Amino acid sequence: MSSEVPDTGKKLVELARSVYNSLKTGEVPELIMPSRNRDNIVLDPMYSVWRYGESKVTRSAKYVDGAEYILKSLYMIEFILEMIKGSKTSTLREMYYISEGWKNGKFGTQDESDIMAEDLEVITSLMREDFRLRPEENGASVIGNLTIEEKNRKGEFKRINCKDDVGEGGYNIPYNVDQEKLKIVSSDADFVLAIETGGMFDRLVENGFDERFRSILVHLKGQPARSTRRLLKRLNEEQHLPIYVFTDGDPWSFRIFASVAYGAIKTAHISQHLAVPTAQFIGITASDIMNYDLPTDVLTDKDQQALQAELKDPRFLNDFWKSEIEAMLKMNKKAEQQALAKYGLDFVTDKYLPDKLSGPNDLGE
Amino acid sequence: MSSEVPDTGKKLVELARSVYNSLKTGEVPELIMPSRNRDNIVLDPMYSVWRYGESKVTRSAKYVDGAEYILKSLYMIEFILEMIKGSKTSTLREMYYISEGWKNGKFGTQDESDIMAEDLEVITSLMREDFRLRPEENGASVIGNLTIEEKNRKGEFKRINCKDDVGEGGYNIPYNVDQEKLKIVSSDADFVLAIETGGMFDRLVENGFDERFRSILVHLKGQPARSTRRLLKRLNEEQHLPIYVFTDGDPWSFRIFASVAYGAIKTAHISQHLAVPTAQFIGITASDIMNYDLPTDVLTDKDQQALQAELKDPRFLNDFWKSEIEAMLKMNKKAEQQALAKYGLDFVTDKYLPDKLSGPNDLGE
Repeated sequence: MSSEVPDTGKKLVELARSVYNSLKTGEVPELIMPSRNRDNIVLDPMYSVWRYGESKVTRSAKYVDGAEYILKSLYMIEFILEMIKGSKTSTLREMYYISEGWKNGKFGTQDESDIMAEDLEVITSLMREDFRLRPEENGASVIGNLTIEEKNRKGEFKRINCKDDVGEGGYNIPYNVDQEKLKIVSSDADFVLAIETGGMFDRLVENGFDERFRSILVHLKGQPARSTRRLLKRLNEEQHLPIYVFTDGDPWSFRIFASVAYGAIKTAHISQHLAVPTAQFIGITASDIMNYDLPTDVLTDKDQQALQAELKDPRFLNDFWKSEIEAMLKMNKKAEQQALAKYGLDFVTDKYLPDKLSGPNDLGE
Repeated sequence: MSSEVPDTGKKLVELARSVYNSLKTGEVPELIMPSRNRDNIVLDPMYSVWRYGESKVTRSAKYVDGAEYILKSLYMIEFILEMIKGSKTSTLREMYYISEGWKNGKFGTQDESDIMAEDLEVITSLMREDFRLRPEENGASVIGNLTIEEKNRKGEFKRINCKDDVGEGGYNIPYNVDQEKLKIVSSDADFVLAIETGGMFDRLVENGFDERFRSILVHLKGQPARSTRRLLKRLNEEQHLPIYVFTDGDPWSFRIFASVAYGAIKTAHISQHLAVPTAQFIGITASDIMNYDLPTDVLTDKDQQALQAELKDPRFLNDFWKSEIEAMLKMNKKAEQQALAKYGLDFVTDKYLPDKLSGPNDLGE
């Protein structure tokens, strides 16, 4: 995958030209891509991450649906080429509204345009960021001894240390963290701790965890945005930093970990750029709930279903997860990471995290 | 209201002592405070903001409920005093979990502890930030030519220019923006533009609106956090900057404007520190939807009910709002600020905002 703008433009023009050429030679234009269905997801043995399998779908202009799909793709390609030319970017929502001006090409819902943007990624092996498209919200934060250079609006690189040059709120991760936009200059840290909730991120910042344990703290903000996962991947690869994931203890948090470590179904075509298979889970487990006698909530029906689904999910197929998921189902309880405050505001940094980071649990995953 | 720690501690100790003294002299302890009911909200004629009226409630130890309430308040006061001593802060959620250790004082739900923290504000005329309590998430961003100094973890003030010293994500507003924590050093701007959605905030940043129109851009992030509203108030008062509010066109966005301009019911006891009565609405109106033929959605039942409620809300009692709310009900449609993208990515900065900022509409409020 390249993130250089000229290549992106070239690839998109080629795609449009292939449709044009089909029409010129009297063939029916079609677009072929991997099926993005749950059934077509496999764990890549080489990278240990999700990717799409061999099953394909064809969008053919032979059918009205397919013809409309191809038309809309061409409008989208034109819009992206305009943005490249004008050095613009757009939110996915803006692109949906922009399509109001595309005769016969207007999207019915934003879901439709979002999925088409992902399809274009799949077809071209490029990334949404190359298309200059961004999600509505990003804004997860980083605090720690990490120095980066971010390209500003004037095209100059601005150097920022994520400990000394920022306020208490930390450094805001921009939507695009590829090499062209963000350079990782240096880090004086031993590991990265990715944290699910803002409350816990702030707790570790206040308790000076990043300085005491030479770490970079990254707020995941729930299910992490692409840019957050990609930055974790780059910190892991370029700075050789291990990634630890600290979440609540419930099935949704386990999924957050899995998406960091192995990728998500929606983005399986770019897992190799987003997923960190060596990431280690140090979030709240069923064992922690018992051992620390944490305040809990009862599992809802949806929680139970999600845990049952995880038992069949290839990403959770090992002894650690099997026993933890079964234990959680049996005790019928879940707990939040902030529940550790039962033992005071310092318990998480004085006891819980040091134990997890040195104990056998961190090898469980 | 003072934010000096010793005063906060002193006031809280006094409150605890009053309970102790009642008990010693054989009286039944009680706490008296304004009723925080919707019925007891009045528009303060002096500040033009919401405040509580004359109606009072008494929590008396004569009743089991009242006795428990007073006991829990004392535990909470003790916890706050400990935080002051240890230079700690806590999320509201952490405090809820901390209460697990309070015999007979454990809160049933976080709602209960959140409301009690607000009650303590009302009783002491202090603010939650003085109690070192913070919400789970803050993190709205600022971009523009504003220089502030924020106190870091080591107690040193760090100078940050919100245009030159930050990345594309901007400066993250910390949870506490009082004088002790954050100094506004200078701003080279003519006005502040507060923006509802992240997508639109990013659009204005990319289009260089802050430089072309000498403005400070503040992301409201939906219904704005206290810290965001307080920063707007301080920019208005200390830097004499007018505040413009740019939102979607729906009843919930009108409420966002009202909470910035006149305060919210939940925080009516501190409206004078949070609300900017001179704030002007330049969000999407029913007239805009018609004049610009914007893409719309049909009003839901809840939207309609909210608009009807606004017609009776004293904060919307003027000709501008009456006619806009009635027009929206009549057309039965709403629109998002990003719907302006129908006319391209530059329309909002080339046409919509310049018109609104110079037109008669900005005097409508």
